[in-house]
Amino acid sequence: MSKQFAVIGLGRFGGSVAQTLHDMGYEVLAIDRDPQRVQDYAQIVTHAVEADSTDENALRALGIRNFDVVVVSIGEDMQSSILTTLILLELGVKKVVVKARNDLQGKVLYRIGAHKVIYPERDMGVRVAHNLISPNILDYIELADDYSILEISAGEFFRGKTLEELDIRAKFGCNVMAIKSGDRINIAPMANDVIHEGDILVVIGHNDDLKKLEEKA
Amino acid sequence: MSKQFAVIGLGRFGGSVAQTLHDMGYEVLAIDRDPQRVQDYAQIVTHAVEADSTDENALRALGIRNFDVVVVSIGEDMQSSILTTLILLELGVKKVVVKARNDLQGKVLYRIGAHKVIYPERDMGVRVAHNLISPNILDYIELADDYSILEISAGEFFRGKTLEELDIRAKFGCNVMAIKSGDRINIAPMANDVIHEGDILVVIGHNDDLKKLEEKA
Ligand SMILES: Nc1ncnc2c1ncn2[C@@H]1O[C@H](COP(=O)(O)OP(=O)(O)OP(=O)(O)O)[C@@H](O)[C@H]1O
Ligand SMILES: Nc1ncnc2c1ncn2[C@@H]1O[C@H](COP(=O)(O)OP(=O)(O)OP(=O)(O)O)[C@@H](O)[C@H]1O
Ligand SMILES: [Ca+2]
Ligand SMILES: [Ca+2]
Ligand SMILES: [Ca+2]
Ligand SMILES: [Ca+2]
Repeated sequence: MSKQFAVIGLGRFGGSVAQTLHDMGYEVLAIDRDPQRVQDYAQIVTHAVEADSTDENALRALGIRNFDVVVVSIGEDMQSSILTTLILLELGVKKVVVKARNDLQGKVLYRIGAHKVIYPERDMGVRVAHNLISPNILDYIELADDYSILEISAGEFFRGKTLEELDIRAKFGCNVMAIKSGDRINIAPMANDVIHEGDILVVIGHNDDLKKLEEKA
Repeated sequence: MSKQFAVIGLGRFGGSVAQTLHDMGYEVLAIDRDPQRVQDYAQIVTHAVEADSTDENALRALGIRNFDVVVVSIGEDMQSSILTTLILLELGVKKVVVKARNDLQGKVLYRIGAHKVIYPERDMGVRVAHNLISPNILDYIELADDYSILEISAGEFFRGKTLEELDIRAKFGCNVMAIKSGDRINIAPMANDVIHEGDILVVIGHNDDLKKLEEKA
Protein backbone atom coordinates (compact mmCIF):
# COMPACT_ATOMS: atom_id res chain seq x y z
CA MET A 1 0.00 0.00 0.00
CA SER A 2 1.08 3.52 -0.71
CA LYS A 3 2.47 5.64 2.12
CA GLN A 4 0.11 7.61 4.32
CA PHE A 5 0.95 11.06 5.60
CA ALA A 6 -0.44 13.33 8.30
CA VAL A 7 0.32 17.04 8.55
CA ILE A 8 -0.36 18.91 11.79
CA GLY A 9 -0.54 22.70 11.45
CA LEU A 10 -1.73 24.22 8.18
CA GLY A 11 0.34 27.40 8.02
CA ARG A 12 2.21 28.21 4.84
CA PHE A 13 4.83 25.47 5.26
CA GLY A 14 2.52 22.70 6.52
CA GLY A 15 -0.16 23.61 4.01
CA SER A 16 2.32 23.42 1.16
CA VAL A 17 3.64 20.03 2.32
CA ALA A 18 0.07 18.67 2.61
CA GLN A 19 -1.01 19.96 -0.80
CA THR A 20 2.12 18.74 -2.59
CA LEU A 21 1.85 15.23 -1.11
CA HIS A 22 -1.81 15.05 -2.09
CA ASP A 23 -1.04 16.35 -5.60
CA MET A 24 1.50 13.54 -5.91
CA GLY A 25 -1.26 11.01 -5.27
CA TYR A 26 -0.72 10.23 -1.58
CA GLU A 27 -3.32 10.05 1.17
CA VAL A 28 -2.97 13.03 3.47
CA LEU A 29 -4.70 13.68 6.79
CA ALA A 30 -4.48 17.38 7.67
CA ILE A 31 -5.01 18.54 11.25
CA ASP A 32 -5.40 22.05 12.64
CA ARG A 33 -7.14 23.49 15.67
CA ASP A 34 -8.33 26.46 13.63
CA PRO A 35 -11.67 25.58 11.94
CA GLN A 36 -11.06 28.14 9.16
CA ARG A 37 -7.78 26.49 8.17
CA VAL A 38 -9.46 23.07 8.27
CA GLN A 39 -12.16 24.34 5.93
CA ASP A 40 -9.56 25.89 3.59
CA TYR A 41 -7.90 22.48 3.16
CA ALA A 42 -11.03 20.30 3.03
CA GLN A 43 -10.93 20.09 -0.79
CA ILE A 44 -7.14 20.00 -1.02
CA VAL A 45 -6.29 16.92 1.07
CA THR A 46 -7.88 13.50 1.71
CA HIS A 47 -9.26 14.40 5.16
CA ALA A 48 -9.05 17.69 7.03
CA VAL A 49 -9.86 17.49 10.72
CA GLU A 50 -10.20 20.06 13.48
CA ALA A 51 -8.26 18.91 16.53
CA ASP A 52 -5.79 20.17 19.11
CA SER A 53 -2.66 18.10 18.63
CA THR A 54 -1.58 18.56 22.23
CA ASP A 55 -4.58 16.38 23.16
CA GLU A 56 -3.21 12.84 23.18
CA ASN A 57 -6.66 11.25 23.04
CA ALA A 58 -7.64 13.27 19.98
CA LEU A 59 -4.52 12.06 18.13
CA ARG A 60 -5.09 8.49 19.28
CA ALA A 61 -8.72 8.63 18.07
CA LEU A 62 -7.45 9.70 14.62
CA GLY A 63 -5.29 6.57 14.49
CA ILE A 64 -2.21 8.74 14.11
CA ARG A 65 0.20 5.88 14.87
CA ASN A 66 -0.80 4.13 11.66
CA PHE A 67 0.57 6.95 9.52
CA ASP A 68 4.00 6.41 7.98
CA VAL A 69 5.14 10.00 8.35
CA VAL A 70 3.73 12.81 10.48
CA VAL A 71 4.83 16.37 9.76
CA VAL A 72 4.45 18.88 12.62
CA SER A 73 4.35 22.40 11.28
CA ILE A 74 3.43 24.54 14.26
CA GLY A 75 5.74 27.53 14.27
CA GLU A 76 4.80 30.24 16.66
CA ASP A 77 3.45 28.21 19.56
CA MET A 78 6.69 26.46 20.50
CA GLN A 79 5.16 24.65 23.46
CA SER A 80 2.47 23.09 21.24
CA SER A 81 5.10 22.05 18.74
CA ILE A 82 7.24 20.29 21.34
CA LEU A 83 4.33 18.69 23.18
CA THR A 84 2.78 17.44 19.93
CA THR A 85 6.10 15.91 18.89
CA LEU A 86 6.48 14.19 22.25
CA ILE A 87 2.99 12.67 22.04
CA LEU A 88 3.57 11.41 18.48
CA LEU A 89 6.81 9.74 19.52
CA GLU A 90 5.19 8.17 22.57
CA LEU A 91 2.35 6.85 20.42
CA GLY A 92 5.00 5.11 18.31
CA VAL A 93 4.87 7.12 15.06
CA LYS A 94 7.83 5.84 13.01
CA LYS A 95 8.82 9.11 11.36
CA VAL A 96 8.16 12.51 12.88
CA VAL A 97 9.36 15.55 10.91
CA VAL A 98 9.11 18.90 12.67
CA LYS A 99 9.46 22.49 11.57
CA ALA A 100 11.51 24.68 13.91
CA ARG A 101 11.90 28.44 14.14
CA ASN A 102 15.35 28.52 15.71
CA ASP A 103 18.30 26.42 16.90
CA LEU A 104 17.10 26.15 20.47
CA GLN A 105 13.75 24.71 19.41
CA GLY A 106 15.53 22.41 16.96
CA LYS A 107 17.85 21.10 19.67
CA VAL A 108 14.98 20.37 22.03
CA LEU A 109 13.11 18.57 19.23
CA TYR A 110 16.08 16.34 18.40
CA ARG A 111 16.72 15.70 22.09
CA ILE A 112 13.19 14.36 22.59
CA GLY A 113 13.57 12.12 19.55
CA ALA A 114 12.23 13.95 16.47
CA HIS A 115 13.54 12.17 13.37
CA LYS A 116 14.08 15.29 11.31
CA VAL A 117 13.96 19.02 12.04
CA ILE A 118 13.47 21.54 9.24
CA TYR A 119 14.10 25.29 9.24
CA PRO A 120 12.19 26.45 6.15
CA GLU A 121 13.10 30.14 6.17
CA ARG A 122 16.76 29.57 6.95
CA ASP A 123 17.21 26.74 4.44
CA MET A 124 15.46 28.72 1.74
CA GLY A 125 17.71 31.69 2.54
CA VAL A 126 20.81 29.62 1.83
CA ARG A 127 19.33 28.37 -1.42
CA VAL A 128 18.24 31.80 -2.62
CA ALA A 129 21.63 33.34 -1.78
CA HIS A 130 23.33 30.84 -4.06
CA ASN A 131 20.86 31.56 -6.83
CA LEU A 132 21.52 35.29 -6.51
CA ILE A 133 25.24 35.34 -7.08
CA SER A 134 24.91 35.07 -10.84
CA PRO A 135 22.05 36.22 -13.08
CA ASN A 136 22.76 33.17 -15.21
CA ILE A 137 22.42 30.75 -12.33
CA LEU A 138 18.85 29.60 -12.29
CA ASP A 139 19.14 26.97 -9.64
CA TYR A 140 21.74 25.61 -7.31
CA ILE A 141 21.97 22.33 -5.46
CA GLU A 142 24.73 21.47 -3.04
CA LEU A 143 25.68 17.84 -3.62
CA ALA A 144 28.59 17.41 -1.29
CA ASP A 145 30.87 19.79 0.57
CA ASP A 146 32.50 21.26 -2.51
CA TYR A 147 30.39 19.91 -5.34
CA SER A 148 27.20 21.32 -6.76
CA ILE A 149 24.78 21.15 -9.62
CA LEU A 150 24.01 24.44 -11.36
CA GLU A 151 21.50 25.46 -13.95
CA ILE A 152 23.14 28.09 -16.15
CA SER A 153 21.57 30.09 -18.99
CA ALA A 154 23.74 29.66 -22.04
CA GLY A 155 25.48 32.99 -22.61
CA GLU A 156 27.39 34.05 -25.71
CA PHE A 157 30.31 31.77 -24.89
CA PHE A 158 28.16 28.67 -25.41
CA ARG A 159 25.91 29.65 -28.29
CA GLY A 160 26.10 27.89 -31.62
CA LYS A 161 28.80 25.51 -30.37
CA THR A 162 28.62 21.76 -29.92
CA LEU A 163 29.48 20.14 -26.59
CA GLU A 164 32.55 18.71 -28.31
CA GLU A 165 33.70 22.19 -29.38
CA LEU A 166 33.06 23.58 -25.90
CA ASP A 167 34.88 20.63 -24.27
CA ILE A 168 33.67 21.70 -20.84
CA ARG A 169 34.94 18.55 -19.18
CA ALA A 170 38.54 19.15 -20.27
CA LYS A 171 38.53 22.96 -19.96
CA PHE A 172 36.55 23.37 -16.73
CA GLY A 173 36.41 19.93 -15.09
CA CYS A 174 32.58 20.03 -15.05
CA ASN A 175 30.05 17.81 -16.80
CA VAL A 176 26.96 18.92 -18.71
CA MET A 177 24.23 16.55 -17.55
CA ALA A 178 21.26 17.98 -19.38
CA ILE A 179 20.25 20.71 -21.81
CA LYS A 180 16.88 22.40 -21.52
CA SER A 181 15.49 24.08 -24.66
CA GLY A 182 12.10 25.61 -24.01
CA ASP A 183 9.79 22.78 -23.02
CA ARG A 184 12.11 20.01 -24.09
CA ILE A 185 14.91 18.55 -22.00
CA ASN A 186 17.74 16.39 -23.21
CA ILE A 187 19.01 14.26 -20.34
CA ALA A 188 21.61 12.42 -22.39
CA PRO A 189 23.55 15.14 -24.22
CA MET A 190 25.86 13.98 -27.02
CA ALA A 191 29.17 15.43 -28.26
CA ASN A 192 27.54 16.83 -31.40
CA ASP A 193 24.54 18.50 -29.68
CA VAL A 194 24.52 22.24 -30.40
CA ILE A 195 23.78 24.85 -27.69
CA HIS A 196 21.25 27.47 -28.78
CA GLU A 197 20.31 30.91 -27.49
CA GLY A 198 17.97 30.52 -24.50
CA ASP A 199 19.16 27.01 -23.69
CA ILE A 200 19.78 26.11 -20.07
CA LEU A 201 22.67 23.85 -19.16
CA VAL A 202 22.53 21.62 -16.11
CA VAL A 203 26.14 21.21 -15.02
CA ILE A 204 27.75 19.20 -12.24
CA GLY A 205 31.19 19.91 -10.82
CA HIS A 206 33.51 21.16 -8.10
CA ASN A 207 32.48 24.61 -6.86
CA ASP A 208 35.80 26.15 -7.96
CA ASP A 209 35.37 24.77 -11.47
CA LEU A 210 31.72 25.84 -11.63
CA LYS A 211 32.72 29.34 -10.59
CA LYS A 212 35.10 29.58 -13.57
CA LEU A 213 32.38 28.32 -15.88
CA GLU A 214 29.90 30.85 -14.45
CA GLU A 215 32.26 33.68 -15.22
CA LYS A 216 32.19 32.60 -18.86
CA ALA A 217 28.41 32.19 -18.91
CA MET B 1 34.50 44.17 -9.09
CA SER B 2 32.54 41.53 -7.26
CA LYS B 3 28.78 41.95 -6.86
CA GLN B 4 27.42 43.94 -3.95
CA PHE B 5 24.29 42.91 -2.08
CA ALA B 6 21.95 44.62 0.36
CA VAL B 7 19.44 42.77 2.52
CA ILE B 8 16.57 44.68 4.15
CA GLY B 9 14.88 42.85 7.05
CA LEU B 10 16.92 40.47 9.18
CA GLY B 11 14.31 37.85 10.09
CA ARG B 12 15.11 34.19 9.57
CA PHE B 13 14.97 34.32 5.78
CA GLY B 14 16.72 37.66 5.25
CA GLY B 15 19.31 36.85 7.92
CA SER B 16 20.11 33.56 6.24
CA VAL B 17 20.45 35.18 2.80
CA ALA B 18 22.77 37.87 4.24
CA GLN B 19 24.95 35.41 6.12
CA THR B 20 25.24 32.98 3.21
CA LEU B 21 26.24 35.72 0.75
CA HIS B 22 28.83 37.03 3.17
CA ASP B 23 30.15 33.51 3.82
CA MET B 24 30.59 33.15 0.05
CA GLY B 25 32.86 36.19 0.04
CA TYR B 26 30.50 38.93 -1.11
CA GLU B 27 30.01 42.39 0.38
CA VAL B 28 26.69 42.57 2.17
CA LEU B 29 24.94 45.62 3.61
CA ALA B 30 22.27 44.53 6.11
CA ILE B 31 19.47 46.92 7.09
CA ASP B 32 16.86 46.60 9.83
CA ARG B 33 14.88 49.08 11.88
CA ASP B 34 15.31 46.93 14.98
CA PRO B 35 18.60 47.86 16.72
CA GLN B 36 18.84 44.41 18.34
CA ARG B 37 18.75 42.66 14.96
CA VAL B 38 21.34 45.13 13.60
CA GLN B 39 23.61 44.30 16.52
CA ASP B 40 23.09 40.54 16.01
CA TYR B 41 24.35 40.83 12.43
CA ALA B 42 27.16 43.35 12.99
CA GLN B 43 29.82 40.62 13.02
CA ILE B 44 28.15 38.47 10.36
CA VAL B 45 27.92 40.89 7.41
CA THR B 46 30.10 43.69 5.98
CA HIS B 47 27.95 46.54 7.35
CA ALA B 48 24.83 46.34 9.49
CA VAL B 49 22.81 49.56 9.67
CA GLU B 50 19.74 50.62 11.61
CA ALA B 51 17.28 52.30 9.25
CA ASP B 52 13.61 52.32 8.31
CA SER B 53 13.47 51.20 4.70
CA THR B 54 10.21 53.06 4.08
CA ASP B 55 12.24 56.26 4.48
CA GLU B 56 13.42 57.10 0.97
CA ASN B 57 16.07 59.53 2.17
CA ALA B 58 17.58 56.94 4.50
CA LEU B 59 17.93 54.47 1.60
CA ARG B 60 19.33 57.16 -0.66
CA ALA B 61 21.89 58.15 1.97
CA LEU B 62 23.05 54.53 2.11
CA GLY B 63 23.71 54.66 -1.64
CA ILE B 64 21.29 51.79 -2.15
CA ARG B 65 21.08 52.31 -5.92
CA ASN B 66 24.70 51.26 -6.30
CA PHE B 67 23.99 47.75 -5.06
CA ASP B 68 23.60 45.06 -7.70
CA VAL B 69 20.88 43.14 -5.89
CA VAL B 70 18.65 44.22 -3.00
CA VAL B 71 16.70 41.56 -1.12
CA VAL B 72 13.61 42.74 0.78
CA SER B 73 12.71 40.28 3.51
CA ILE B 74 10.00 41.99 5.50
CA GLY B 75 7.24 39.49 6.08
CA GLU B 76 4.64 40.54 8.56
CA ASP B 77 4.41 44.24 7.81
CA MET B 78 3.07 43.96 4.27
CA GLN B 79 2.78 47.69 3.79
CA SER B 80 6.46 48.21 4.66
CA SER B 81 7.42 45.44 2.26
CA ILE B 82 5.49 46.97 -0.65
CA LEU B 83 6.53 50.54 0.06
CA THR B 84 10.19 49.56 0.41
CA THR B 85 10.06 47.71 -2.91
CA LEU B 86 8.49 50.70 -4.63
CA ILE B 87 11.17 53.06 -3.33
CA LEU B 88 13.98 50.72 -4.42
CA LEU B 89 12.54 50.49 -7.92
CA GLU B 90 12.09 54.25 -8.16
CA LEU B 91 15.67 54.77 -7.02
CA GLY B 92 16.72 52.59 -9.97
CA VAL B 93 17.95 49.42 -8.22
CA LYS B 94 18.56 46.93 -11.05
CA LYS B 95 17.45 43.78 -9.24
CA VAL B 96 14.95 43.73 -6.39
CA VAL B 97 14.09 40.33 -4.89
CA VAL B 98 11.23 40.31 -2.38
CA LYS B 99 9.89 37.76 0.06
CA ALA B 100 6.11 37.40 0.10
CA ARG B 101 3.75 35.72 2.55
CA ASN B 102 0.91 35.00 0.15
CA ASP B 103 -0.25 35.22 -3.47
CA LEU B 104 -1.95 38.56 -3.07
CA GLN B 105 1.22 40.19 -1.77
CA GLY B 106 3.21 38.47 -4.51
CA LYS B 107 0.89 39.78 -7.23
CA VAL B 108 1.11 43.33 -5.93
CA LEU B 109 4.90 43.08 -5.79
CA TYR B 110 5.17 41.86 -9.39
CA ARG B 111 2.67 44.49 -10.52
CA ILE B 112 4.80 47.32 -9.12
CA GLY B 113 7.87 45.87 -10.82
CA ALA B 114 9.68 43.56 -8.38
CA HIS B 115 12.09 41.38 -10.37
CA LYS B 116 11.57 38.25 -8.33
CA VAL B 117 9.17 37.21 -5.57
CA ILE B 118 9.99 34.35 -3.23
CA TYR B 119 7.69 32.38 -0.93
CA PRO B 120 10.16 30.64 1.42
CA GLU B 121 7.72 28.55 3.47
CA ARG B 122 5.65 27.42 0.50
CA ASP B 123 8.64 26.61 -1.72
CA MET B 124 10.31 24.71 1.10
CA GLY B 125 7.05 22.81 1.67
CA VAL B 126 7.08 21.55 -1.92
CA ARG B 127 10.69 20.53 -1.61
CA VAL B 128 10.26 18.73 1.70
CA ALA B 129 7.16 16.88 0.44
CA HIS B 130 9.18 15.43 -2.40
CA ASN B 131 11.93 14.41 -0.02
CA LEU B 132 9.42 12.65 2.23
CA ILE B 133 7.90 10.26 -0.26
CA SER B 134 10.80 7.86 -0.05
CA PRO B 135 13.23 7.31 2.81
CA ASN B 136 15.87 6.77 0.16
CA ILE B 137 15.31 10.10 -1.52
CA LEU B 138 17.76 12.50 0.02
CA ASP B 139 17.14 15.44 -2.21
CA TYR B 140 14.91 16.37 -5.06
CA ILE B 141 15.24 19.05 -7.70
CA GLU B 142 12.62 19.79 -10.31
CA LEU B 143 14.41 20.47 -13.60
CA ALA B 144 11.51 20.87 -15.99
CA ASP B 145 7.83 20.03 -15.84
CA ASP B 146 8.31 16.28 -15.72
CA TYR B 147 12.03 15.88 -15.20
CA SER B 148 13.93 15.86 -11.94
CA ILE B 149 17.22 15.09 -10.31
CA LEU B 150 17.09 12.78 -7.30
CA GLU B 151 19.63 11.74 -4.73
CA ILE B 152 18.92 8.13 -3.82
CA SER B 153 20.61 5.97 -1.18
CA ALA B 154 21.78 2.79 -2.83
CA GLY B 155 19.54 0.02 -1.53
CA GLU B 156 20.10 -3.71 -1.91
CA PHE B 157 19.17 -3.63 -5.59
CA PHE B 158 22.25 -1.54 -6.41
CA ARG B 159 24.86 -2.93 -4.06
CA GLY B 160 27.93 -4.68 -5.37
CA LYS B 161 26.90 -4.11 -8.97
CA THR B 162 28.63 -2.06 -11.64
CA LEU B 163 26.77 0.64 -13.56
CA GLU B 164 27.06 -1.59 -16.60
CA GLU B 165 25.39 -4.48 -14.77
CA LEU B 166 22.64 -2.19 -13.47
CA ASP B 167 22.11 -0.68 -16.94
CA ILE B 168 19.87 2.01 -15.46
CA ARG B 169 19.72 3.95 -18.73
CA ALA B 170 18.25 1.01 -20.66
CA LYS B 171 16.10 -0.42 -17.86
CA PHE B 172 14.73 2.80 -16.34
CA GLY B 173 15.47 5.56 -18.85
CA CYS B 174 17.39 7.55 -16.21
CA ASN B 175 21.05 8.55 -16.06
CA VAL B 176 23.39 8.27 -13.07
CA MET B 177 25.25 11.57 -13.01
CA ALA B 178 27.29 11.16 -9.87
CA ILE B 179 28.08 8.71 -7.08
CA LYS B 180 28.76 9.93 -3.56
CA SER B 181 30.75 7.62 -1.27
CA GLY B 182 31.28 9.20 2.13
CA ASP B 183 33.30 12.36 1.57
CA ARG B 184 34.22 11.56 -2.01
CA ILE B 185 32.12 12.26 -5.03
CA ASN B 186 32.58 10.86 -8.51
CA ILE B 187 31.07 13.23 -11.04
CA ALA B 188 32.05 11.19 -14.09
CA PRO B 189 30.86 7.66 -13.32
CA MET B 190 32.15 4.90 -15.63
CA ALA B 191 30.49 1.66 -16.74
CA ASN B 192 32.74 -0.42 -14.49
CA ASP B 193 32.30 1.66 -11.32
CA VAL B 194 30.86 -0.49 -8.50
CA ILE B 195 28.07 0.74 -6.18
CA HIS B 196 28.77 0.11 -2.49
CA GLU B 197 26.62 0.06 0.62
CA GLY B 198 26.00 3.63 1.79
CA ASP B 199 26.65 5.14 -1.63
CA ILE B 200 24.34 7.86 -2.86
CA LEU B 201 23.38 8.00 -6.53
CA VAL B 202 22.55 11.30 -8.19
CA VAL B 203 20.14 10.40 -10.97
CA ILE B 204 18.45 12.49 -13.67
CA GLY B 205 15.32 11.43 -15.53
CA HIS B 206 11.61 11.68 -16.26
CA ASN B 207 9.52 11.62 -13.08
CA ASP B 208 7.75 8.41 -14.14
CA ASP B 209 11.06 6.65 -14.73
CA LEU B 210 12.52 7.96 -11.48
CA LYS B 211 9.49 6.67 -9.61
CA LYS B 212 10.14 3.16 -10.93
CA LEU B 213 13.77 3.43 -9.92
CA GLU B 214 12.79 4.66 -6.45
CA GLU B 215 10.62 1.63 -5.93
CA LYS B 216 13.69 -0.55 -6.51
CA ALA B 217 15.91 1.57 -4.25
N1 LIG C 1 -1.98 22.64 19.30
C1 LIG C 1 -2.34 22.76 18.01
N2 LIG C 1 -3.13 21.83 17.41
C2 LIG C 1 -3.47 21.95 16.12
N3 LIG C 1 -3.06 22.98 15.33
C3 LIG C 1 -2.27 23.92 15.87
C4 LIG C 1 -1.87 23.87 17.23
N4 LIG C 1 -1.08 24.97 17.47
C5 LIG C 1 -1.00 25.66 16.32
N5 LIG C 1 -1.72 25.05 15.34
C6 LIG C 1 -1.87 25.48 13.98
O1 LIG C 1 -0.62 25.47 13.32
C7 LIG C 1 -0.68 26.34 12.19
C8 LIG C 1 0.68 27.01 11.94
O2 LIG C 1 1.06 27.72 13.05
P1 LIG C 1 1.80 29.13 13.04
O3 LIG C 1 1.01 30.14 12.27
O4 LIG C 1 2.20 29.40 14.41
O5 LIG C 1 3.09 28.81 12.24
P2 LIG C 1 3.92 29.72 11.30
O6 LIG C 1 5.33 29.57 11.66
O7 LIG C 1 3.44 31.11 11.16
O8 LIG C 1 3.63 28.98 9.96
P3 LIG C 1 4.16 29.30 8.52
O9 LIG C 1 5.41 30.11 8.65
O10 LIG C 1 4.41 27.93 7.94
O11 LIG C 1 3.05 30.04 7.87
C9 LIG C 1 -1.84 27.31 12.45
O12 LIG C 1 -2.82 27.09 11.46
C10 LIG C 1 -2.34 26.91 13.84
O13 LIG C 1 -3.76 26.97 13.96
N1 LIG D 1 10.26 49.35 7.53
C1 LIG D 1 11.24 48.53 7.92
N2 LIG D 1 12.53 48.93 7.82
C2 LIG D 1 13.53 48.12 8.21
N3 LIG D 1 13.34 46.89 8.72
C3 LIG D 1 12.07 46.44 8.84
C4 LIG D 1 10.96 47.23 8.45
N4 LIG D 1 9.83 46.52 8.70
C5 LIG D 1 10.22 45.33 9.22
N5 LIG D 1 11.56 45.28 9.31
C6 LIG D 1 12.37 44.18 9.83
O1 LIG D 1 12.17 43.04 9.01
C7 LIG D 1 12.52 41.88 9.76
C8 LIG D 1 11.67 40.70 9.36
O2 LIG D 1 10.33 41.02 9.53
P1 LIG D 1 9.22 39.99 10.06
O3 LIG D 1 9.60 39.43 11.38
O4 LIG D 1 7.94 40.68 9.89
O5 LIG D 1 9.29 38.86 8.99
P2 LIG D 1 9.04 37.33 9.15
O6 LIG D 1 8.15 36.92 8.05
O7 LIG D 1 8.63 36.87 10.50
O8 LIG D 1 10.49 36.85 8.87
P3 LIG D 1 11.04 35.34 8.84
O9 LIG D 1 9.88 34.43 8.57
O10 LIG D 1 12.02 35.39 7.71
O11 LIG D 1 11.67 35.13 10.15
C9 LIG D 1 12.41 42.27 11.23
O12 LIG D 1 13.69 42.17 11.81
C10 LIG D 1 11.92 43.71 11.20
O13 LIG D 1 12.52 44.52 12.21
CA1 LIG E 1 1.85 32.42 11.30
CA1 LIG F 1 6.98 31.19 9.38
CA1 LIG G 1 8.61 37.28 12.52
CA1 LIG H 1 8.03 33.83 8.16
